[in-house]
Amino acid sequence: MREIRQPGAYSYVYGKYEEPIATVKPGETVAIYTKDAFTDQISKETDRPSQIMSNPNPQTGPIYIEGAEPGDTLVARIIEIEPTRDYAVSALIPNFGGLSNTNITRTLNEPIPEKVWIYKLEDGVLTNNKRLSFPWRPFLGTIGTAPALEAISSITPYDHGGNMDVPDVKPGNTIYLPVRVPGAYFFTGDVHGGQGQGELCGVALEISAKVTIQFDLIKNKSINWPRIESDTEYMVVGSARPMEDAARIAYAELIVWLEELGWDKWEAYQALTQIGELYVGNMVDPNYSLVAKIDKKYALID
Amino acid sequence: MREIRQPGAYSYVYGKYEEPIATVKPGETVAIYTKDAFTDQISKETDRPSQIMSNPNPQTGPIYIEGAEPGDTLVARIIEIEPTRDYAVSALIPNFGGLSNTNITRTLNEPIPEKVWIYKLEDGVLTNNKRLSFPWRPFLGTIGTAPALEAISSITPYDHGGNMDVPDVKPGNTIYLPVRVPGAYFFTGDVHGGQGQGELCGVALEISAKVTIQFDLIKNKSINWPRIESDTEYMVVGSARPMEDAARIAYAELIVWLEELGWDKWEAYQALTQIGELYVGNMVDPNYSLVAKIDKKYALID
Amino acid sequence: MREIRQPGAYSYVYGKYEEPIATVKPGETVAIYTKDAFTDQISKETDRPSQIMSNPNPQTGPIYIEGAEPGDTLVARIIEIEPTRDYAVSALIPNFGGLSNTNITRTLNEPIPEKVWIYKLEDGVLTNNKRLSFPWRPFLGTIGTAPALEAISSITPYDHGGNMDVPDVKPGNTIYLPVRVPGAYFFTGDVHGGQGQGELCGVALEISAKVTIQFDLIKNKSINWPRIESDTEYMVVGSARPMEDAARIAYAELIVWLEELGWDKWEAYQALTQIGELYVGNMVDPNYSLVAKIDKKYALID
Amino acid sequence: MREIRQPGAYSYVYGKYEEPIATVKPGETVAIYTKDAFTDQISKETDRPSQIMSNPNPQTGPIYIEGAEPGDTLVARIIEIEPTRDYAVSALIPNFGGLSNTNITRTLNEPIPEKVWIYKLEDGVLTNNKRLSFPWRPFLGTIGTAPALEAISSITPYDHGGNMDVPDVKPGNTIYLPVRVPGAYFFTGDVHGGQGQGELCGVALEISAKVTIQFDLIKNKSINWPRIESDTEYMVVGSARPMEDAARIAYAELIVWLEELGWDKWEAYQALTQIGELYVGNMVDPNYSLVAKIDKKYALID
Repeated sequence: MREIRQPGAYSYVYGKYEEPIATVKPGETVAIYTKDAFTDQISKETDRPSQIMSNPNPQTGPIYIEGAEPGDTLVARIIEIEPTRDYAVSALIPNFGGLSNTNITRTLNEPIPEKVWIYKLEDGVLTNNKRLSFPWRPFLGTIGTAPALEAISSITPYDHGGNMDVPDVKPGNTIYLPVRVPGAYFFTGDVHGGQGQGELCGVALEISAKVTIQFDLIKNKSINWPRIESDTEYMVVGSARPMEDAARIAYAELIVWLEELGWDKWEAYQALTQIGELYVGNMVDPNYSLVAKIDKKYALID
Repeated sequence: MREIRQPGAYSYVYGKYEEPIATVKPGETVAIYTKDAFTDQISKETDRPSQIMSNPNPQTGPIYIEGAEPGDTLVARIIEIEPTRDYAVSALIPNFGGLSNTNITRTLNEPIPEKVWIYKLEDGVLTNNKRLSFPWRPFLGTIGTAPALEAISSITPYDHGGNMDVPDVKPGNTIYLPVRVPGAYFFTGDVHGGQGQGELCGVALEISAKVTIQFDLIKNKSINWPRIESDTEYMVVGSARPMEDAARIAYAELIVWLEELGWDKWEAYQALTQIGELYVGNMVDPNYSLVAKIDKKYALID
Repeated sequence: MREIRQPGAYSYVYGKYEEPIATVKPGETVAIYTKDAFTDQISKETDRPSQIMSNPNPQTGPIYIEGAEPGDTLVARIIEIEPTRDYAVSALIPNFGGLSNTNITRTLNEPIPEKVWIYKLEDGVLTNNKRLSFPWRPFLGTIGTAPALEAISSITPYDHGGNMDVPDVKPGNTIYLPVRVPGAYFFTGDVHGGQGQGELCGVALEISAKVTIQFDLIKNKSINWPRIESDTEYMVVGSARPMEDAARIAYAELIVWLEELGWDKWEAYQALTQIGELYVGNMVDPNYSLVAKIDKKYALID
Repeated sequence: MREIRQPGAYSYVYGKYEEPIATVKPGETVAIYTKDAFTDQISKETDRPSQIMSNPNPQTGPIYIEGAEPGDTLVARIIEIEPTRDYAVSALIPNFGGLSNTNITRTLNEPIPEKVWIYKLEDGVLTNNKRLSFPWRPFLGTIGTAPALEAISSITPYDHGGNMDVPDVKPGNTIYLPVRVPGAYFFTGDVHGGQGQGELCGVALEISAKVTIQFDLIKNKSINWPRIESDTEYMVVGSARPMEDAARIAYAELIVWLEELGWDKWEAYQALTQIGELYVGNMVDPNYSLVAKIDKKYALID
């Protein structure tokens, strides 16, 4: 299997303005190496992210998908995520996080303290201390394609994907992404060894990894927002502020998906009212990401 | 077991201004009869909620809890919820719902159409048609106590509980509510025979019911927001707008709960980042309700 | 002129559950005495609001308006606001204010410091020091009627009026309020000797006062939200969270007003796009209040 | 005076990825020609923006400012805005606008109707009909510099400026913008012949224009958000969602400005509470823009 490593500087935006680092054919499976959200610069609890870091979330990419054209849908099946080191990192960062004032939610309070936690990875468990010990549940914090015109920071999720921080972007699941430029310009990175819903303090169990993805294309079929399919569920990720707008997008696009599967709009609205699920992926990024889902057994197709 | 029925008009606010309809002792288990959200006035698909209804969500109560004083916590163990009829009702209501303009999110669009669905309840399944068929998963849409001074509409959830529309308020779980007036003034109603997360169109599987609850008191222990405990989880419900404020409240109060259990604040913040869960109870009421939770196996107590 | 003083305890909710303290006839002008937001308990810079205060915003009322019935509109012409003491008070209060974490926008930051400013009122100027010296521009922070069922805290603005903190509620202007219970149950209080738009720290130039108001009734004419009319402008106050919902309400209801004056809906929408004004009354209360306005010279009536 | 016209295709993003179209020296005054928001494609009321338009808000730029380096502040004094045609255009566009469902605030309502208004410009007045007739009050809807890494759509305002739609960006006023890339990469466009606060329907009095701007640089002085100075006021523009975050940013940065002028932080917070102003620039773009201001006579400098 072909391995893709970032040849030079990592990318910190999702855009069409950088040269592709590799070309992949539809149907091909590749292994992509990713750095952690701190570009692997934090390794001990005395390190200070705010001093070390300029840009978070280095991306591996852009990867050019052969034959992808605007109006197609890119399919990324996540086969496997393997750690490339034996520890993960989390941290409190001043002016950042779900229960902190931030650069967007500005207050005059003193910032919260800075703090780093190192988690040892052993036998499928990430452990800092007796209480802070969590199973290895890896997923891709960031995944997406280039917008038509914009270059969007790799800390921001939006309709191209990006920094959604959604735990369902995990091995076994298939991610559908819009193609908006020739070649799609796929990026990924920011592997989390595990994360709660909301990514509360803003820093999950950050780790570098080797990510195995099989790509495919659905020609002449466009989607507005990222979709996820598991063996048992259909999901859509909406990313916006305030959070209710992300919720509206996620459910509205799940209705669009059900309509594509043969449902009537109002009946889909009714079904999701009674059986849909809606969780918070992140409540910390420039847009919040919410995941709406329906169990396939209730999404009966004609 | 004693049965409590509303003797006269139902209540449509959570407040201390109405006379208690019954008095219950701590430790006592009672059966409370509730009407559905439409005061049982919708029974066929040609009925029109907007013409029939003045106030939704009739409450049974207030129920006076003997010995309850401001600063205590009321404990309500939900033992059982039994339907008192064989059908549930859902509906689209103009200017209401998660994917509709509303009286608060005002737009100039024409309202969405009005529509009623009747679900037959049989063998633990609620069925309207082949697609719209869902298991019986009953819970209390509204539950709470009187605020110190306010009388809050039974369509609004806030720190007293009220119309949270949170599916975890279900049999087997224990709800903790703040006591803010002598006697607590407990209300409940709005049973849902099932509901997805978010209660997307604003109307779940509405049904009248007989609700069995065991009450208890924790003296001299106050809580700020409603809590839920299941066999396996600690949960807090935050209700606010915009939705991110509800999320912040839910997680911040779950940290408070963990601190009461012996945790350090920052360590609790870190643990919830990695293993907490956060789902949307409702995205349709005057406040949105979000539920933050942690599995008890990660909430290790000293 | 008749003088109305609160005979006993002040009210801290807008509701129908307390006995009227006075009855006023349509057409009558009365002088109403109000206490400041701290119930006149802060008089020096070493006082600490957080220790002294239980409930802010004591209201004088309810005042029963003879002949007022649900579906009418109450008219309150503010004739004059005279201070009843020679100083005003402002303060920083922990967990409160526009640039602070709050009980609704919860964070883990340490609270901002507590601090009191006393302003001497002399020759129409309120002065604390050389920089903190502002003209006397009095208005009513709170004004409103009782909701149909709820009793709403006097710190919360909503469609009944209440704690809007809108500087246009000032002498010379006419306030229109919905009547939702027989007698309207009018309340007012919380006089500000001046305030910037947004009431940034949450505490304006708080002062006790004698307020002269002429009441009137418009029979069989209902309004949804409070309106203000000056010699030169039509204004509507919308109060909600998030702030964009308050903005939508304010402008949508101003369109309703223009339609009542003979305008087409889409033309009114167009006119307000080009010539409407929209400022923030408060960004600190449980609902934010925004004021949409149009100059009468652009609101041409057929 | 040198005239700058877009030599080829217009730009639709604020970014560093396009080649500069001109270089300007600090101190130099130039005339910049701009197209209207519809790239001048709408000229009669039967035109349909949704069919004609792919990208709105064509920008003239990037203009390279000689000597500008990251960490400097770019100064743009708006000298004059002259129309280059005799009519302006406004429109209702489906799924867009302040009182409409949108692509971000998604609902299932049918879209509002599409409609175009043409305004004749004569003797300083823009007139469509008797009611829709407004004075010529031109300003720049979009103005800004390139972000460090991102390329941001010209419909989005943020900390680089961009599509703020703030009427105070007008002749006589000075705009301060952050420099984040060498040469600053200045863009402008989207002249409005007038606009109400909020730009309610999302389309102001759109017109093509000749814009005279004098540029200058403040070396080694960085600002976080765009500032505006008039003869009598200091202003900051904050752009975010929800709207309260835009309000917080605007006032928090105005406090930063007052601190630079010698103020204590808490005293500035207090002064803005009593005398600050806060209006809505736009309530329709991907971020809302709010303007906080203080009259210079209250911003006393030591």
